[in-house]
Amino acid sequence: MILGKVVGSVVSNTRSLNIDGAPFLLIEKTNQKGEKMGEFIVAVDIIGAGYDEMVMISESTSARETLITTNKPLDALIVGIIDRISEDDKFVYIK
Amino acid sequence: MILGKVVGSVVSNTRSLNIDGAPFLLIEKTNQKGEKMGEFIVAVDIIGAGYDEMVMISESTSARETLITTNKPLDALIVGIIDRISEDDKFVYIK
Amino acid sequence: MILGKVVGSVVSNTRSLNIDGAPFLLIEKTNQKGEKMGEFIVAVDIIGAGYDEMVMISESTSARETLITTNKPLDALIVGIIDRISEDDKFVYIK
Amino acid sequence: MILGKVVGSVVSNTRSLNIDGAPFLLIEKTNQKGEKMGEFIVAVDIIGAGYDEMVMISESTSARETLITTNKPLDALIVGIIDRISEDDKFVYIK
Amino acid sequence: MILGKVVGSVVSNTRSLNIDGAPFLLIEKTNQKGEKMGEFIVAVDIIGAGYDEMVMISESTSARETLITTNKPLDALIVGIIDRISEDDKFVYIK
Repeated sequence: MILGKVVGSVVSNTRSLNIDGAPFLLIEKTNQKGEKMGEFIVAVDIIGAGYDEMVMISESTSARETLITTNKPLDALIVGIIDRISEDDKFVYIK
Repeated sequence: MILGKVVGSVVSNTRSLNIDGAPFLLIEKTNQKGEKMGEFIVAVDIIGAGYDEMVMISESTSARETLITTNKPLDALIVGIIDRISEDDKFVYIK
Repeated sequence: MILGKVVGSVVSNTRSLNIDGAPFLLIEKTNQKGEKMGEFIVAVDIIGAGYDEMVMISESTSARETLITTNKPLDALIVGIIDRISEDDKFVYIK
Repeated sequence: MILGKVVGSVVSNTRSLNIDGAPFLLIEKTNQKGEKMGEFIVAVDIIGAGYDEMVMISESTSARETLITTNKPLDALIVGIIDRISEDDKFVYIK
Repeated sequence: MILGKVVGSVVSNTRSLNIDGAPFLLIEKTNQKGEKMGEFIVAVDIIGAGYDEMVMISESTSARETLITTNKPLDALIVGIIDRISEDDKFVYIK
């Protein structure tokens, strides 16, 4: 999974991808410390991630492996909100 | 999903990928503001995206997860036309 | 789908990937104008693409979604020979 | 499969990806000698990899092909702890 | 498929990926002429590729599409040993 932060949202009214109540969030990729790296993707959120929260994202077909997203043409899903990341026995990110 | 703009179309008469009424569009990838980045892919369009519209695209096998595209050898599908993108509580793209 | 030109062929007699009558072609990736970019992949051809023709290629599992290629361990398939590409209402490639 | 070293762990309490007893590990990608390269991903561990061990990781949907991970939205799985790597008949990495 | 040469092997005794008699080989990616490019991946070999042989490799889920590798969490499989590659009607690689 890759790491990123929720920086915004994407509104699309004409679409072939409909998931009730699951917004499209604008994600900026981050390193393991939560520092933003200037690269953006759009991911579907089914767990209620909020603005500026660090999340991990599953890409490709793995994004479809939940009851809500099965058989949907999405390729990026927020699978977890990050609470803490440790590196070399030190916390490098705390929510 | 990645972001891009419709910049043209691709005509291919000899092909193993046939989807009735679904054109192949030339897409230039953009950042979250809709600024073009010089990278191009070909995507299948089943929602009627028009010239210069910003779209989001599902890649890889996710592109096959619609009634129209199931079991087709495509790896890039336009899944939504973008109306607005907000970043840090400001609109950075409005259609 | 990505764009490329047929620049050669690949002969492999010891292999676990056998598709009757479908050659392995050497493809050089191109931009939307058909200009070569120095990157090469090997793709399976089931539509009879010829030397120097511009083609579009499906990657990953999408390459298996034809009657001929189903359940084969290939990850790149020529899905169409390009006739014309337009960008900003001008033809940038004509076969 | 790609190579990396276990450098830390990731705690996520709100998530749509639950695998009993399988932690999320922070992996830094390495070259074939085990030298770190500054790129990080999060992978699921079902074999008990420890801190600073070199591992190989399957990405994309391949990560779901075990009894424990089937139908889970993960895209990176530790599939083996590396004991030795030889290159040109010399060992370039020994655990 | 991508091109590479067999440069070594990888030993992993603790793993979740077991394929009887199929070694993990260290592959250095090459260009179409067989010139090494300094990038390495680990691939499973079921056809008996030897040291310094040029091979083509299927990545992602395509790697699972053989009787031996089905339902295994691997994402890179050697699918053929290269005998010859021609580019612009000249042989650029001969085994």
